[in-house]
Amino acid sequence: MDDVEESTQQTRRRGRRAGGEDTKAALLAAARETFIERGYEGATVRSIASRAGVDAAMVNHWFGGKEGLFAKAVLQVPVDPNTLVERLLDGPREQVGERIVRNFLAIWDATGGGHFAALMRSVTSHERVASVLREFFVQHLLHRVLTGIGADQPELRATLAATQIFGMGMVRYVVRFEPLAGTDVETMVKAVAPNLQRYLTGKID
Amino acid sequence: MDDVEESTQQTRRRGRRAGGEDTKAALLAAARETFIERGYEGATVRSIASRAGVDAAMVNHWFGGKEGLFAKAVLQVPVDPNTLVERLLDGPREQVGERIVRNFLAIWDATGGGHFAALMRSVTSHERVASVLREFFVQHLLHRVLTGIGADQPELRATLAATQIFGMGMVRYVVRFEPLAGTDVETMVKAVAPNLQRYLTGKID
Repeated sequence: MDDVEESTQQTRRRGRRAGGEDTKAALLAAARETFIERGYEGATVRSIASRAGVDAAMVNHWFGGKEGLFAKAVLQVPVDPNTLVERLLDGPREQVGERIVRNFLAIWDATGGGHFAALMRSVTSHERVASVLREFFVQHLLHRVLTGIGADQPELRATLAATQIFGMGMVRYVVRFEPLAGTDVETMVKAVAPNLQRYLTGKID
Repeated sequence: MDDVEESTQQTRRRGRRAGGEDTKAALLAAARETFIERGYEGATVRSIASRAGVDAAMVNHWFGGKEGLFAKAVLQVPVDPNTLVERLLDGPREQVGERIVRNFLAIWDATGGGHFAALMRSVTSHERVASVLREFFVQHLLHRVLTGIGADQPELRATLAATQIFGMGMVRYVVRFEPLAGTDVETMVKAVAPNLQRYLTGKID
């Protein structure tokens, strides 16, 4: 799939750029390749832009910076992680579990779980994708939420929360076990949020 | 991969059978194909044995029946599901979550998570594998545990428990987020078992 994408991008790079969509697509393809090759920290906006043959300023213009570019190129979600972290922290500390369930379901349900399933396919078959996801999801997303709410043991709590978030996605969008796969958001919140909340702020040892 | 396996099996079928290992391998390959083609209920021991060119009695002899054959061929775990269900039910109702964490970690840790990762790779890329796993894991494993402990809403609880079990496996063996991936069983039990227990016997709505 990557080869096909790459060849499409090459063609596009030689073709017209006027509308911006071609440039955007070239940038996303270059970003995906660079993040997977060098990891999240190792990839620079400058190197990605140069690889795509576009001005680095366009990355900020279109994606709000490196994090937003990563989210769109690798996680395939149209949400800037900074905005997501802000949303997760916006409200009472004892409802952060609920906000996580609502926000992740809103993002993934929007494409019928297709983007989550594609990400998991990529993660299970490419160690480099697993590696960059590891770096980003825990350190740049969950860890910031944990420190934002002042939790102890942020590393362990972040990874425990990840088990529930990934597990919810696997069962709802990949193996699709019923009734969970087809149930409404409120039922999910009542069932899952208290467990997430315990991982984030409760007693875990 | 399946084609290669199949052709290997064909060769083996024509070769010697004396030690039993060739026949066993042929049976496992035939079982995997048949379960994926026809689903768990649809596949019969007779049809699998016939496909492998072996006597149906050997399935009981080697794998203790259809469930054990499924576990070995599709789930790639060396544990008969009947035995597993018995173990999960053997003890106080309020410790069933703990027994699930201990038993699944023991099974998966034994191969460094390799079998779990292979199963997830298969599930994310083949809808038929997802489908047969769905049928088996919920109805023939978790649902029996739930009815065994006399839980209400066994369907929803079984799928909620599945989110935690799959999520634990994904984070520990596939994306391998630290410190969870490398931590000891006792830490996992203290952190994860209470959440599983709530899904199985607690208030979920």
